[in-house]
Amino acid sequence: MKIQISLLFAILFVHTKSQECDPALIQEIRNYRPVAELIIEEILHGASKGLCYEKLAEFVDSYQLRITGSQVLEDSIDYLLEQYQGERSVMDNTWKESVPNLPHWTRGEEEAFLIEPVHKSMSILAFGGSIATPLGEPLVAEAVVVTSFDELRSLDASQVSGKIVVYNQGYVSYSQSVNYRYKGASEAAKLGAIAALIESIGPFSINSPHTGVMTYAEGDTKIPAIAITQEDAEMLRRIYLTGERIVISVKSNSQTHQPITSHNLIADYNGTRYPDKVVVVSGHIDNWDVGQGAMDDAGGMMIGLIAVEVINSLGLRPKRTIRNILWTAEEQGLLGAEHYFNTQKNELDKFVFVMESDSGTFDPQGLTYTGDRRNGECIIKEILSLLGAINATRYQWTSGSVSTDITHFTDAGVPGAGLWDTDGQYFYFHHTEGDMMTVEDPNALDRAVALWAVASYIIADLTDDFPKPSPRTTN
Amino acid sequence: MKIQISLLFAILFVHTKSQECDPALIQEIRNYRPVAELIIEEILHGASKGLCYEKLAEFVDSYQLRITGSQVLEDSIDYLLEQYQGERSVMDNTWKESVPNLPHWTRGEEEAFLIEPVHKSMSILAFGGSIATPLGEPLVAEAVVVTSFDELRSLDASQVSGKIVVYNQGYVSYSQSVNYRYKGASEAAKLGAIAALIESIGPFSINSPHTGVMTYAEGDTKIPAIAITQEDAEMLRRIYLTGERIVISVKSNSQTHQPITSHNLIADYNGTRYPDKVVVVSGHIDNWDVGQGAMDDAGGMMIGLIAVEVINSLGLRPKRTIRNILWTAEEQGLLGAEHYFNTQKNELDKFVFVMESDSGTFDPQGLTYTGDRRNGECIIKEILSLLGAINATRYQWTSGSVSTDITHFTDAGVPGAGLWDTDGQYFYFHHTEGDMMTVEDPNALDRAVALWAVASYIIADLTDDFPKPSPRTTN
Repeated sequence: MKIQISLLFAILFVHTKSQECDPALIQEIRNYRPVAELIIEEILHGASKGLCYEKLAEFVDSYQLRITGSQVLEDSIDYLLEQYQGERSVMDNTWKESVPNLPHWTRGEEEAFLIEPVHKSMSILAFGGSIATPLGEPLVAEAVVVTSFDELRSLDASQVSGKIVVYNQGYVSYSQSVNYRYKGASEAAKLGAIAALIESIGPFSINSPHTGVMTYAEGDTKIPAIAITQEDAEMLRRIYLTGERIVISVKSNSQTHQPITSHNLIADYNGTRYPDKVVVVSGHIDNWDVGQGAMDDAGGMMIGLIAVEVINSLGLRPKRTIRNILWTAEEQGLLGAEHYFNTQKNELDKFVFVMESDSGTFDPQGLTYTGDRRNGECIIKEILSLLGAINATRYQWTSGSVSTDITHFTDAGVPGAGLWDTDGQYFYFHHTEGDMMTVEDPNALDRAVALWAVASYIIADLTDDFPKPSPRTTN
Repeated sequence: MKIQISLLFAILFVHTKSQECDPALIQEIRNYRPVAELIIEEILHGASKGLCYEKLAEFVDSYQLRITGSQVLEDSIDYLLEQYQGERSVMDNTWKESVPNLPHWTRGEEEAFLIEPVHKSMSILAFGGSIATPLGEPLVAEAVVVTSFDELRSLDASQVSGKIVVYNQGYVSYSQSVNYRYKGASEAAKLGAIAALIESIGPFSINSPHTGVMTYAEGDTKIPAIAITQEDAEMLRRIYLTGERIVISVKSNSQTHQPITSHNLIADYNGTRYPDKVVVVSGHIDNWDVGQGAMDDAGGMMIGLIAVEVINSLGLRPKRTIRNILWTAEEQGLLGAEHYFNTQKNELDKFVFVMESDSGTFDPQGLTYTGDRRNGECIIKEILSLLGAINATRYQWTSGSVSTDITHFTDAGVPGAGLWDTDGQYFYFHHTEGDMMTVEDPNALDRAVALWAVASYIIADLTDDFPKPSPRTTN
C-alpha cells in the first residue's frame, strides 16, 4: 500500500512528522476539543470576556513603576498575594519566596542638551545600573559620534579621550542591537571616553528613549551609560559628519544603593491526581521606572492569572498542578527566575512543563516550543489545532530560549513554551514611557488568555507526563 | 447620435468631464511629456538625486527651533535669503517682507505629576499662547476627567470650580479633534476650572505630547492650556471612573511678550514673456519650539526651492514667473500669509496659480486642486497624467482649502493646488519632538520635488493663463 501513497501525502507526512506521533496520544488530545471550545466560548463570549483587560488596567494603574527595589513593586506583589489568598481566589496555595541580594538602582534627575553648534534639549533615560555623572551634576564635553563598535575601535584614543561617545548604531534586531546598550559604555571607556550616549534600542521612535539594564564588566572603568533617541542620534551623526564641533551637556544623578530583597509570588491550582507535578504558567511582575509595564510584562503575567480563573469557573481541574509564578527582578537579568531555579534544580522531575509570556499580548499567533521533538512536538501541534477559533494555531520550534524567565528550566531540559505574539510594535514601546495600557487591546488579551488556558489545562491533564527530551530524540 | 451612447460612456463622460476640455489645451500639455520626463529623470537619476534631503537636513539641523519670535527663525530666514542671493543662486530677485505685530510666546519650564492616588510624572507641552500657571509655580488641584465638551457641560459648576479639567476626547480626525486644543481651556474656565490638560491631537503616541496654537476668546477667563499624552489622558480617565480622587501638580511658566516683527521670504525665478504673472510655490519656514519642523513644514518649503533649482539646471525657464514664498508665523494662525495677501489683494490678477505643500512629503500621491472645474480641472488632470513614473497621478478636487497658507488666495478665487501626500503617519509626529529628519525619506522627497517642478513649470509656461473660475463654471 505504501508504494501507492501519492507524493503529496508523503510530503504531508514529512511536514507534520505525524508518522512519529503516538496515535493514542493524538486521539487523547483531540478528545479535548469540547473542553477547548468551552474555554474559548467562555472567554470570547461569556462572563470572562474583557476580564483580563479590566484586571490588568486596575493593576498597572494602581502600581505603575514596579522597578526592583521600589516599594511600589513590593506593594504590587502584596496586593496580588492578597488577591490570591482572598475569599474569591480560586488558588489553593499562594506564597511569596524571598529573592535576596538584588541590585537596587534609582534614577535621579537627568537632562541633556546639545549646546554646540546649536542648542537643543534631548530626551534621555539613563540605563539601569549606570553610574551618575560626576557629583550628579552636568558633564559638558565634546562628542564623537560613531555608528558601530568597529568605527569606535578604528579611532585613536587621543580622538576619544575626555569626550562623550555617541552611538548611532541603528536598529537591526533587539537581540543584535542590544549589545550597544550592554557594552557601549565599557567599550567607549577603554578609549578614555567620559560618558556614552547610546541610541535607543528600537525600530521606531517619536522622540522616545528606551531604558534597560546595562552592566560594567569586572575591571572596566565605569562611565555613565544613557539612552538618547533615534532622532537625536541621527541628528548628531549628521552634524558630526559636517566636521563641526559638537558639545553636549548631560546630567544624570542615578544611584546604586545597598542590595535589597524582593519576592517571587507563587500560586498553585492543585492537580487532582498528581498534585506534586507542576505546569508553570508565568510572567514577570517587575518593570522599569517608566510607563506602566503594561506590555512588559504585566499583560503576560495577567493572562496566566486569568487563565486559571477561567479554568476554575468552568468547573475544570486538571490532574497536575498549574502553578502561576510572577517573577521578580526580570529586568535586572532574570534574577528572580534564576533564584527560583536554583532552589528547585534538584527537583526538576516535578516540573512537567514551563510556560511564559514576555513578548507582548498584542495578537497571539500560537506557541514557540522547545523540548522533545517526537511526541512533545505532536502534543503542542495537536493542541494548537484546537485553537482555530482564536487564530492561534501557529507553531515554531527552537533549540534556544522560548521566553526570558523560564530559560533556566528549558536549558536544563524541562520542555517549555512561550506565547508567540505578533510583536510588530512591541519594540516601539519596550522600556519606554509609552508602555502603558493604551498599547493593550481587550480582544487580543482575551485570545491570549484562551490560548494560555487551553494549552496549560491540557498539558496539566494528560494521562502521561509531557515527554521530556532525551539525547536520542532531541534535535 | 447621443441617444445611441451607452450608459457606460455617459458615466465616463460625466466622471472625467472630458467633453468639456479644450482639445488644443490638452494637446499643449501632452507636448510637455518630454520636458516632464527630463525633469523626472534629472531628479530620480541625475545630479539632483538626493539633493532635497541633503539641503533639508543641513537647514533643519542648523536651525531647529524656528518658532515665531525666536532669533533662530530670523537667522534661518537670513540664511536662506543669503543662499537665494548668493552667487550660485538661480533666483533673479529675492527679498524679505516684514510681517509686523506677531505674537511672541515662549515656553518656560514645565512639568506635571499625578500625585494622587499614585505618583507618576507626565510628559506635557503647553499650547502656544497659553498663560502660565500662577507665578510660573506648580498648581496643585483635584482633577475632573471628561471625554467631550458635552460631558463637561453636563457637570455642575460646583463639580468643576477650582479644579483642573482633563480632556480624554480621543482622536477622530485632526480637523475635528483640534477644537479641544483651541477651546478646551475656555470651555473649562466657564465652569470655574483653573487649568485644562488636553489629550494631544494625534492618532498614535509613544508618550508624545503635541503642542499647537490656542487662543482665548474675547472676555474669556484665561487658564493654562497644556497638552498631555494620549496614554496619560486614558490612564486618568480610567482612574477617574473608579471614583478615586485625582490630584495633579502642573507647572508651566510660558510667557507672552510684546509683539514682534518677522518676515516672509520671497524669491522670483522670472518668467520670459509675462514676468509680472506669478505662479506661487510655497511652504512655511516657522515651526514650533520642539523637534526640527522637518516635516512641518521645512520639507514642504524645501521641495519648492529645489524644484526651481532643477528647472534651472535643465536650462528651462517658463513664460511666467515662479515665485517661491516661505511664509512666516504659519503656526500662529497663517499670519505671514494673511499679511502678504492683504498687501496683494488689490493685484490678484497677477497671481495665476498658488501652490503649497504643508501636509508632509512622505509619499506624494498627486494634487489636491481648487478652482475652475472645466479647463482648469482638465489641465491639472493632464499634468498628473505625465507623472506616472513617480506614481503621483492622483487627483482630488475640493471647494475648500487645499493648503494652509494659500487659503486666503484660493478663497479669493485664485486657483491653487496642495501636494497630496499619504499622510498616514503625519499626525503621529505633528507638533511633537519627533518631527525631525528621521521621518523624512530621500526618495519620497525627490518624488515630491519632481511633482512640484513639473506642475509649476507647466502651469507657468502655458500659452494662456491658467483659467480662473467664474460664477458660471465653478461648482
